[in-house]
Amino acid sequence: MRKIHVIGIGAGDPDQLTLQAVRAMRDTDVFFVLGKGEVKDDLVRLRRDMLETHVPEGTYRVVEARDPERDRAAEGAAYSPAVEDWRLARAGIYERLIAGELGEDESGAFLVWGDPSLYDSTLGILEEVLGRGTVAFEYDVVPGISSVSSLAARHRTGLNRVARPVQITTGRRLAEGFPEGVEDVVVMLDAHQTFRRYADEDLDIYWGAYLGTPDEILDSGPIAEAGPRIERLRAQARERKGWIMDTYLLRRRPRP
Amino acid sequence: MRKIHVIGIGAGDPDQLTLQAVRAMRDTDVFFVLGKGEVKDDLVRLRRDMLETHVPEGTYRVVEARDPERDRAAEGAAYSPAVEDWRLARAGIYERLIAGELGEDESGAFLVWGDPSLYDSTLGILEEVLGRGTVAFEYDVVPGISSVSSLAARHRTGLNRVARPVQITTGRRLAEGFPEGVEDVVVMLDAHQTFRRYADEDLDIYWGAYLGTPDEILDSGPIAEAGPRIERLRAQARERKGWIMDTYLLRRRPRP
Ligand SMILES: C[S@@+](CC[C@H](N)C(=O)[O-])C[C@H]1O[C@@H](n2cnc3c(N)ncnc32)[C@H](O)[C@@H]1O
Ligand SMILES: C[S@@+](CC[C@H](N)C(=O)[O-])C[C@H]1O[C@@H](n2cnc3c(N)ncnc32)[C@H](O)[C@@H]1O
Repeated sequence: MRKIHVIGIGAGDPDQLTLQAVRAMRDTDVFFVLGKGEVKDDLVRLRRDMLETHVPEGTYRVVEARDPERDRAAEGAAYSPAVEDWRLARAGIYERLIAGELGEDESGAFLVWGDPSLYDSTLGILEEVLGRGTVAFEYDVVPGISSVSSLAARHRTGLNRVARPVQITTGRRLAEGFPEGVEDVVVMLDAHQTFRRYADEDLDIYWGAYLGTPDEILDSGPIAEAGPRIERLRAQARERKGWIMDTYLLRRRPRP
Repeated sequence: MRKIHVIGIGAGDPDQLTLQAVRAMRDTDVFFVLGKGEVKDDLVRLRRDMLETHVPEGTYRVVEARDPERDRAAEGAAYSPAVEDWRLARAGIYERLIAGELGEDESGAFLVWGDPSLYDSTLGILEEVLGRGTVAFEYDVVPGISSVSSLAARHRTGLNRVARPVQITTGRRLAEGFPEGVEDVVVMLDAHQTFRRYADEDLDIYWGAYLGTPDEILDSGPIAEAGPRIERLRAQARERKGWIMDTYLLRRRPRP
């Protein structure tokens, strides 16, 4: 039976690999690396460096494939179908990779950014492939340090406050309103600096870009002051590197 | 200047230590281990085993202290003051440990269960100690694999669904009602199997106890069926071991 490891590799710092992830990597014959095109080549390189550091040369193969393009212009009602099309296209690619590149008794692996449980499609796609019934395999999941944990650690703060909840959401959702019933909100996948909408509320922001990498940038403070600073930092960084990954925690200040 | 590492050690599986955590442990002169009394001795032992495995003997000291008792009977309005008293008592202990047991040029460490950013008081207490101004130190935080990531990995599921939010909350909060605006809710610190209140809703539950340890138990399914099963498993396990740690994800099924 083919075996697949879905391995969380942390969100930027190669030292944030777990011992379990290293072990799973050493147990792997074929690594599937899906490139996202121009901008994310740094992230593909980081994965290759991890392999070179932790897995003896000659014990594995790397198969690269190109991620299908996603229709990023789709908004509103068109958004979910666009994501769904992309998911199905990806499933087709994974299906061909697993059937064509992985021998019956071999182990394959997908190296997933951060933790596979947060805003990552790998598990859904593997289930989709299994459901098609054309290629059989077993799989397991190795958790990783998410960008959320990394953000909190770098700011030396908890995500929740004592006995309170925390919500993890997307920029797109935050644009629809501040989530109800929570005072601590982590925002991912925000291409539009949606925090600006809340500039006149009693919020603190804890922001991090390229967390765990040599380019890491951190900033925090009351949103009215830190917000405009972060906008500038973000624009400059994006300009300089050509792409950006950032995450932030919004924390409502307790009313006096 | 004294230095302190707050190190997330994962939530049960010693292989879920990160390379960064191992490095920080090797850089530590004094480990502070706070015992919680009878039931949690297993967890203290796990920390000691980690040190023996990863840090050369003779390069470190371990200082054990007893956690102050918390008034667990306090409910409702008395709950927050009880937590606050306990936090202040703990701060006093940490202050004495750091001032009394850590030399001026030494590094100390607290080994925090799971990820320090989730329902853990260590960072708040260190800030409290710094605020008192009696002993100066620097500190940094090493993120860890949380029981939440571990739960999702073992069930091979994401926490969020595509483009949707996820909330992390406590049993106490869940007892007040199902959180608004979210369909995926992770529940921690639930001593009362609060999921029972939602047995007749269209929910799936993904449950895990003693995650990552040899005692690990997993169960999942529609809450009407899986709920009573989990109740029994939980009661048996608690009886057998004398204590239990469990976490679960409640996922509302999409309406047809
Ligand atoms: C598709 S999601 C994947 C999240 C990933 N599974 C994790 O656990 O962090 C991508 C989003 O994660 C966040 N992110 C990932 N890596 C990051 C990093 N190194 N620094 C800041 N944000 C990051 C950003 O919000 C980005 O838009
Ligand atoms: C005080 S909180 C600490 C959480 C920890 N910082 C983390 O990241 O997992 C303790 C709660 O975490 C959850 N928990 C911790 N370890 C667990 C494990 N190994 N299995 C299941 N639940 C666990 C339980 O819900 C427990 O009540």
